[in-house]
Amino acid sequence: MHVAIVGGGVIGGGWAGRFVENGVDVIVFDPHPEAERRVRDMLENAERAWAKLTLAPRVRGSVSFASSLADAVGDADIVQESAPENEALKRRLLAEIDELARPDALVCSSTSGLLPSRLQADMTHPERFVVGHPFNPVYLLPLVEVVAGEQTSENAVERALSLYRSLGMKPLRVSKEIDGFVADRLLEALWREALWLVHDDVATVEEVDDAIRYAAGLRWAQMGTFMTYRIAGGEEGMRHFLEQFGPALEWPWTKLTNVPELTDELIEKLAAQSDLQAGGLSVRELERIRDDNLVALLQALRSREYGAGAVLHAHEARLFTEAAPATIDADPTRPLRLYETTVDPSWVDYNGHMTEARYADVFGYATDAFLRHIGLDAAYLGGGHSTYTVETHIRYLREVGALEPLSVGTQVLGSDEKRLHLFHTMTHVATGEGLATGEQMLLHVDTKAGRACAWVEPLAEQVAAAAAAHVALPVPDGAGRAISLQSR
Amino acid sequence: MHVAIVGGGVIGGGWAGRFVENGVDVIVFDPHPEAERRVRDMLENAERAWAKLTLAPRVRGSVSFASSLADAVGDADIVQESAPENEALKRRLLAEIDELARPDALVCSSTSGLLPSRLQADMTHPERFVVGHPFNPVYLLPLVEVVAGEQTSENAVERALSLYRSLGMKPLRVSKEIDGFVADRLLEALWREALWLVHDDVATVEEVDDAIRYAAGLRWAQMGTFMTYRIAGGEEGMRHFLEQFGPALEWPWTKLTNVPELTDELIEKLAAQSDLQAGGLSVRELERIRDDNLVALLQALRSREYGAGAVLHAHEARLFTEAAPATIDADPTRPLRLYETTVDPSWVDYNGHMTEARYADVFGYATDAFLRHIGLDAAYLGGGHSTYTVETHIRYLREVGALEPLSVGTQVLGSDEKRLHLFHTMTHVATGEGLATGEQMLLHVDTKAGRACAWVEPLAEQVAAAAAAHVALPVPDGAGRAISLQSR
Repeated sequence: MHVAIVGGGVIGGGWAGRFVENGVDVIVFDPHPEAERRVRDMLENAERAWAKLTLAPRVRGSVSFASSLADAVGDADIVQESAPENEALKRRLLAEIDELARPDALVCSSTSGLLPSRLQADMTHPERFVVGHPFNPVYLLPLVEVVAGEQTSENAVERALSLYRSLGMKPLRVSKEIDGFVADRLLEALWREALWLVHDDVATVEEVDDAIRYAAGLRWAQMGTFMTYRIAGGEEGMRHFLEQFGPALEWPWTKLTNVPELTDELIEKLAAQSDLQAGGLSVRELERIRDDNLVALLQALRSREYGAGAVLHAHEARLFTEAAPATIDADPTRPLRLYETTVDPSWVDYNGHMTEARYADVFGYATDAFLRHIGLDAAYLGGGHSTYTVETHIRYLREVGALEPLSVGTQVLGSDEKRLHLFHTMTHVATGEGLATGEQMLLHVDTKAGRACAWVEPLAEQVAAAAAAHVALPVPDGAGRAISLQSR
Repeated sequence: MHVAIVGGGVIGGGWAGRFVENGVDVIVFDPHPEAERRVRDMLENAERAWAKLTLAPRVRGSVSFASSLADAVGDADIVQESAPENEALKRRLLAEIDELARPDALVCSSTSGLLPSRLQADMTHPERFVVGHPFNPVYLLPLVEVVAGEQTSENAVERALSLYRSLGMKPLRVSKEIDGFVADRLLEALWREALWLVHDDVATVEEVDDAIRYAAGLRWAQMGTFMTYRIAGGEEGMRHFLEQFGPALEWPWTKLTNVPELTDELIEKLAAQSDLQAGGLSVRELERIRDDNLVALLQALRSREYGAGAVLHAHEARLFTEAAPATIDADPTRPLRLYETTVDPSWVDYNGHMTEARYADVFGYATDAFLRHIGLDAAYLGGGHSTYTVETHIRYLREVGALEPLSVGTQVLGSDEKRLHLFHTMTHVATGEGLATGEQMLLHVDTKAGRACAWVEPLAEQVAAAAAAHVALPVPDGAGRAISLQSR
């Protein structure tokens, strides 16, 4: 799949991160002289966030930069346009993309609220145009509003929904075409009220933000406003709640009967208060704080399999299922070499060394690679069987730092009717130094019964064959050893 | 401290939970025949949530129910009024409370937007009246808006701020008295727009909620709208963002120029869609799902020490400081118990179980706690010595999920002139089940030379003493064992 990203600002750069972290190659076009640097900054943010977000097996896509719109979109299967929010500009640009792209390419716009029927009006193939409106940071937030114009084909909508789902997103199909769609109408209502509160000196920008993030924001991160009020209504239910709170709609509790004028004075006031709130942190620093917070929130919701966390959970399940089979050396007459990686910067401690637990992770990935290699696939797991690690013995031989390349050799020390005994050797790819050994005992289990059980065909045969293939190999140094003050 | 809670609905019951979980005795008055049962349900929710929220040492307060307003408020140091949102009713009730309470009692109202100057107008001692507006569920959400009326004394405001802080809350002092204060003006703006979206069939209640919780809600759980837009504005800063997005304020992106009329038809539509969204779950079930989500989000932010998580972190730090010393068992004649934690949501895999590597992390933290316990402090590290783990043997006995409480027991199996042999046992705090064992060999090193070297005083003596203290303890099950297909 080739994806062209037209426009390399916060949204286009965020899309690049979302695609690349999910294994899609992208080509970016943006005439701004600083565009490449900005997109690369965003890609770095995305890489950093995803390294923390998930341990699921992924390959990263590549990025290239086109010097013309034609070079960017000519070969693309999908074009994601993220130009500034200006209808005339977008219409012109989309008509050009329409001319230059293959007729079967899907053309999506990131517009946050311009009407797709108007945006597609100058296109020769308007049927392949659809709005896919994401939210900043695009590489972390799952929502994307999908909105069709009058001339959009159902096929284009389906392709967009399927594309965004494959990137771990939550597409929301907006059925009625209105300015601002759904999400931005809600954001805009809150934003306008927030501006009034600062304008009228009821609160500072920091106080407005605090009023959100210490209460309603925590509710909205997992349930929306209707579900929240359904619960607040208590046992009498939603009808009662609405009847009880109906009169409040007549109260003068918003100032939204008109629009605050953004005078120079108001802009200055907002900007000065915002500087104070940021406390000297740069936007780059704030981005990373925000991303780390979002990663933690997404993982918290993942542990609950709820809302955005359920989307992440489903995405990871797919990544595990689709993980590529072993392409690394698998000659069965010597230790298998099925797993290589580089030390992710997030794996090292403040002294610059990979943490103890990450050695265990690396050996865990090598075990996963071995199990996939012998045929433990999604179908087998789906049949209600899996393997659990019941023991691990790690010997730490050398420290290793961020970005260093690792390779793991795997030897089968033996197996019986429900167990498998593996020995991993972690070496530095460049220097060949031994870094650690990891010995593991795996137990085959019936996941429904939650009990150990014998290997099931066709895996049983593969386990025995893998053990037989290694039976004549010498027992590696350190295998079968207990930890003891007597041993050196 | 005696606290009277007047009104036992969702807010009054939530206050009861907040106070009781923080060791304060409350007396509740509500003439509704079902009030006691409802408050007890809320207290049960609060107890359940706080048990998951924190392991900090706490005592729970008691609850009693008064049969008259006089009985409830007569002895109270603080009265928290949470009657229905009706100005005439609240004024009458507050005047009565004012008559019945001691003159030095603080009187707070939970009103979400009625003006304190009007609410205090009929009181004889209006100076001790202040608004303390919390958010549902009160026992979990930290925000409380503190608003003074014209006659409120600064002393009353200070007492309220200090009271709410002592309950782990984040008081926001609202400096200007307006209808709806700050938070509910923002909520109301979003709510009115949400009603329009459903009214106009642009979206269902579920779609509106999804538009919030899969994007902006995640942002708002940690940063508010101004900080979010500051970052979205990118490198050009807040002024540029405002200038760029200013014109959008003139766009027809909200419908808030008038107010949707809550006709029977609209109420029916909202309620029917809400029933569909709830999928048959009762409000009680939804409350628990919500509370578990909020606990996970608060803990995720606590791990970041950010926003609402920073408030929780500070509250816990205070609870730990104020607790009697040595809450964790350090009796040297049995395995030490120096480390407890809950399973952080980021530690679990997509199946909901703590990953293998995180067992290694937990044992690493327990080793750190042990080393600190015997005196390996910053001064010792600063002298150029440290310890490295050279071997780890983990036996995985039981799976454990997010937020479950763990405790680690540590036994010294032996030591020599430069090594230390530890054995950790991880158990579930609630069930007492053994979850894993972790055996470790530590090597003392000269960090500058990068070489093993003998322990240095004063640590050398402590290492030997710790080993001597445990020499007579029985060797724990699984210690000193090699991984082998022969062993069971």
